[in-house]
Amino acid sequence: MKYRLRCVTCGREVEAGPRALRMGALTCSECGALKGTLDVLYPLQELRERYSRDVTLLRGKPVFEAFFSIFPFAGLESLPPIRVGDTPLLPSPNLSSLIGVPRLWIKDDGRNPSASLKDRASAVALAMAREAGANVIAAASTGNAASSLATLAASVAAKAVVFVPSNAPLPKLTQILIHGARVVRLNSNYDTAFDLCQAACETFGWYNRNTAVNPFTGEGKKSVALEIVRDLGEIPDAVICPVGDGCIIGGVHKAFVDLRGLGLTTRLPRLYGVQAEGASPLVKAFETNSELEPLKDVSTVADSISVGTPRDGTKALRAVRDSGGAMVAVSDEEILDAQKKMATLGGMFAEPAASAPLAGLGRLIERNLVGRRESVVLLMTGHGLKDTQTALRNVTIEEELVEPDIDSVARKLGDLARSRS
Amino acid sequence: MKYRLRCVTCGREVEAGPRALRMGALTCSECGALKGTLDVLYPLQELRERYSRDVTLLRGKPVFEAFFSIFPFAGLESLPPIRVGDTPLLPSPNLSSLIGVPRLWIKDDGRNPSASLKDRASAVALAMAREAGANVIAAASTGNAASSLATLAASVAAKAVVFVPSNAPLPKLTQILIHGARVVRLNSNYDTAFDLCQAACETFGWYNRNTAVNPFTGEGKKSVALEIVRDLGEIPDAVICPVGDGCIIGGVHKAFVDLRGLGLTTRLPRLYGVQAEGASPLVKAFETNSELEPLKDVSTVADSISVGTPRDGTKALRAVRDSGGAMVAVSDEEILDAQKKMATLGGMFAEPAASAPLAGLGRLIERNLVGRRESVVLLMTGHGLKDTQTALRNVTIEEELVEPDIDSVARKLGDLARSRS
Repeated sequence: MKYRLRCVTCGREVEAGPRALRMGALTCSECGALKGTLDVLYPLQELRERYSRDVTLLRGKPVFEAFFSIFPFAGLESLPPIRVGDTPLLPSPNLSSLIGVPRLWIKDDGRNPSASLKDRASAVALAMAREAGANVIAAASTGNAASSLATLAASVAAKAVVFVPSNAPLPKLTQILIHGARVVRLNSNYDTAFDLCQAACETFGWYNRNTAVNPFTGEGKKSVALEIVRDLGEIPDAVICPVGDGCIIGGVHKAFVDLRGLGLTTRLPRLYGVQAEGASPLVKAFETNSELEPLKDVSTVADSISVGTPRDGTKALRAVRDSGGAMVAVSDEEILDAQKKMATLGGMFAEPAASAPLAGLGRLIERNLVGRRESVVLLMTGHGLKDTQTALRNVTIEEELVEPDIDSVARKLGDLARSRS
Repeated sequence: MKYRLRCVTCGREVEAGPRALRMGALTCSECGALKGTLDVLYPLQELRERYSRDVTLLRGKPVFEAFFSIFPFAGLESLPPIRVGDTPLLPSPNLSSLIGVPRLWIKDDGRNPSASLKDRASAVALAMAREAGANVIAAASTGNAASSLATLAASVAAKAVVFVPSNAPLPKLTQILIHGARVVRLNSNYDTAFDLCQAACETFGWYNRNTAVNPFTGEGKKSVALEIVRDLGEIPDAVICPVGDGCIIGGVHKAFVDLRGLGLTTRLPRLYGVQAEGASPLVKAFETNSELEPLKDVSTVADSISVGTPRDGTKALRAVRDSGGAMVAVSDEEILDAQKKMATLGGMFAEPAASAPLAGLGRLIERNLVGRRESVVLLMTGHGLKDTQTALRNVTIEEELVEPDIDSVARKLGDLARSRS
């Protein structure tokens, strides 16, 4: 075994017995549900000699191979055979000009197999499940984790069971079904779906891929930040993540902590979490410097971060506090506006939650938390095709078709059809 | 200028004058519309010394940089800033077992910015337009070329005008609109949209990105085959492409011809084109060894290859004849069945046209045109999220929601909930 586990709340080292490993459910029994999430630890001191100080030498190597010794699986062959991660880190000259931040990058994780960052978590959880000999893998999800698990499970002939809330967008549901996963679409929100999935895993003995309960999901998400450092060749000043459960920002933080432990970097970037105003319990906890209080009713256009009970809240708050960052809330209007700006100026079609970081950057600049001369990375966590219904709020489809003659075209295009380019 | 142009029909060398370059419309005036498409020629003999015989040394380098001297643009900076191409070449152990072809690879071009292979053509056409100083770029499209042009044009602040038929799927239409392209949705099929786009480019002086009329689109599509050779490290025995207009298979053929001209390979793979039975004029021309006869009425679930007048038919037929391949037709049922197999066994969600190559492989094996011990690459040309409506024919969404209690879950999942894994 390459790792040890430690409770993020009490610091106790927790042993991963064979049953816990086979179930994927590993939390600290003393600290309980929301607080007993675990950190996966590696012998970083001993591993130092395996890595050159120049992280850019790892470019061109797949991330799971390049950083193999700080991932939990025993062999690369346990991963799904369809490439996960190694997505592009994109500049956008137009967006940079608009916002006035020249050193801006967007990490386009819509290029993953199921078109979302969740594939990173699913890939590592699946690898651990396979190594533990488990074959039925379950997850609760707002939609992306479920469609991701369905996609990757199919590639390795594992059985996926997913629990989704009633508001999961149709494209995500289509993905889940076409990949042959068993889906339980509940008459409930995501938070209830999560609790029920927990109970089902216990009752039926399935491998549990749930966020926070399975610490390897965060190890998978860590890979996105490792790629940023490898491809950028430096630690950015700020990394901005959408936050629902908090697993992504927790994983990003873990990456920088591990890199520091390996002696490859000396500082952390400031990590910023962006929540939707209608679902922002972590923003409240951060601003009042208090304990996380779950919200019963949440509402936002960004389905992927429509979470009232953030299961990885402890790690998320630690990530922003430890790095000198913050949690900020943005309105649905700001999210939709950011989606439109990314699409029209960046050529990037992001789902609503994946547009939240750009909206958040606006707020952070206003509040002087991020400077215009700093280097900033936004996590674009899912492709816009994953929720076309919400995107349609940003555009108008004219019902009337144009007759196929040049005069009708000229009338339709007005100005553009009068001037020769 | 790095290239010359030659008519595929009469062999005449055609000069690309400044006006033709600024318009993007370059065909042989003697041979006319369907037959006057051009080949882009490079001084391959002179370029030989720039390339090592070992193509795998180019792994890790972006394709447009690795093979820069056999692309037409003058500088890499003319390309859009969002990564196009360099998509994964994936094995699928499960699909291999099912079909009995161990050396099977799927080139997953759904990982492009707009989630289709068309981004390769749009990227190179846009680069040429920018170098020629054109700013309004038009294309007719069944949907993918239009959403691709809209995406990439936005990233470089160029104006895109797209002509689409009435049956363009909603996700593609959403992409076009959210990226801010001007869209003309016609009361017509694709073939009429193409003719009208031609007329509009002429009338209004726009840069013409249309397939066949703009020879640089094929040069863009060529990149997919260059990547296959670079990443596979050998020439496969067969490459199977979906065929509508014929531009993709024409570009794939061109790649192997250029590689041979550079001395990097000695043989071509057999190229197979797959059309839908309801839209298969090229299959008919191939089987009867006769001239292409356009079809007036076409119909298939695979919107991306729903083409009655294949504009790049000459290049497509040349590709299969010259390489010892063939054109085959598959039914809509076979396409939907292939989509389901790729999704459930490969973990790959392909749009209908992108599933056609797997359906075609079945036919080719039956007819002994492809052997089970050969190495085969299927082009997965677009992500399934681009047409969820058709994918829904393959699955059942149960309207009824499950009540959030463990007994309801157990009832819903039956067998799976009884046995512990």
